[in-house]
Amino acid sequence: MTDEPQSREAFEARLRQIGAERYHDRHPFHHLLHGGGCTPDQVRAWVINRYYYQHSIPMKDAAFMSRVEDPALRRAWRKRIEDHDGTDVNEGGIRRWLRLAEAVGLDPDYVASCRGVMPATRFAVDAYVRFVRDKTLLEAVAASLTELFAPAIHANRIEGLLKHYPFANDASLSYFRKRLTEAPDDVAFGLKWVLDHADTAEKQDMAAAALTFKTDVLWAQLDALHSAYVEPGRIPPGAWVPGEGLLLARAS
Amino acid sequence: MTDEPQSREAFEARLRQIGAERYHDRHPFHHLLHGGGCTPDQVRAWVINRYYYQHSIPMKDAAFMSRVEDPALRRAWRKRIEDHDGTDVNEGGIRRWLRLAEAVGLDPDYVASCRGVMPATRFAVDAYVRFVRDKTLLEAVAASLTELFAPAIHANRIEGLLKHYPFANDASLSYFRKRLTEAPDDVAFGLKWVLDHADTAEKQDMAAAALTFKTDVLWAQLDALHSAYVEPGRIPPGAWVPGEGLLLARAS
Repeated sequence: MTDEPQSREAFEARLRQIGAERYHDRHPFHHLLHGGGCTPDQVRAWVINRYYYQHSIPMKDAAFMSRVEDPALRRAWRKRIEDHDGTDVNEGGIRRWLRLAEAVGLDPDYVASCRGVMPATRFAVDAYVRFVRDKTLLEAVAASLTELFAPAIHANRIEGLLKHYPFANDASLSYFRKRLTEAPDDVAFGLKWVLDHADTAEKQDMAAAALTFKTDVLWAQLDALHSAYVEPGRIPPGAWVPGEGLLLARAS
Repeated sequence: MTDEPQSREAFEARLRQIGAERYHDRHPFHHLLHGGGCTPDQVRAWVINRYYYQHSIPMKDAAFMSRVEDPALRRAWRKRIEDHDGTDVNEGGIRRWLRLAEAVGLDPDYVASCRGVMPATRFAVDAYVRFVRDKTLLEAVAASLTELFAPAIHANRIEGLLKHYPFANDASLSYFRKRLTEAPDDVAFGLKWVLDHADTAEKQDMAAAALTFKTDVLWAQLDALHSAYVEPGRIPPGAWVPGEGLLLARAS
């Protein structure tokens, strides 16, 4: 690494390459899920654990805003919290996720309680919230840039789920449909901010490391799911076991 | 102190008593300001330093939200950030404060830069943000309850400023006018939350101590102002000195 920063274009390409190599769309669980290879219980395990990530994301964004002195940057960032927690005119991503939970036969109150979430999921997700609380603003924004790679995974996910699972329809998949329009706005802002602020080689390295860290956070979640519910299928103590947390109507 | 918690009514009365004894409407600077006894430069010093508090409040609220797991509580709390940072239909308290700055002859960009803010102001305000980040949610909400005492001070302030200062009019005082309607909503929510959650004597003591701490934060800001710009009038190194940061049109 020389001390000269990379050009804007070269640095953006470097960030995109991190996604190409490490984003969780390359994980076997992703292929299993989207290819129709998951059992209903494996889908449920994913919905339960991924909820913990969804419910933590606004905490992460609030931790970021708690360190931003510039009201204009806070205002721009606040949209992310609104997108997840909801507004008067938008029920928000968290409620949409709970509708997906219901569609796969889970009691949304059980899912919202976060009982049954694997410790490994909590460790990974909590590490992300702490990262954003403790690191530089540049690293925090750079970590959010996995959204660069999300539209493809969401489009792919909608198509795969619709094709393979009876629970999948417009209502149950509305979370992903909505993210197709929300995420690109966020990431365009975040990418520009990172390209503008990573103006030395050292800062570019920090930003790239932060984005790499975030891909680790996502990957670790799918690793934990795969290990607990697919292969070898060893569910950790206290985590969800099939049959728990079902909607009464379907459990009976 | 016995181990039995106080009744809801007795505990609320105890919280209100803290305001009656310690809220900053009892500070001499408050009387000077509202009674028309401040010079234009003393008003400016207040506007400059108080801006630091205003600009930090959304960081404090975001720090709170970053620790709240319940999406519904986060949604309810988010309004506070919107009130200060603004929305599409509401310019927000921070911009309103900058209009007050302009009305008293200060360059709003200078005020927004926070140059000239006294270290003592920063120490007190930053202590509040850290308090909310580090303490229990109960203590954080209890600390916000100084808003219980704010409507009286705002009404009093509008009346006093209009009567005594030529800069005061509906536009320049819109910050206070707006807070008259915003603060009661917030505090009704916060008070109920504290009364609901402080269900042991120990928690009631913690909540009362947190509210006391917050009155200290407000009081210390006026103490620092008084000492620097009134009596003895010793401005600390680096803090605003009269003549700095004026609007060009008026400075010429």
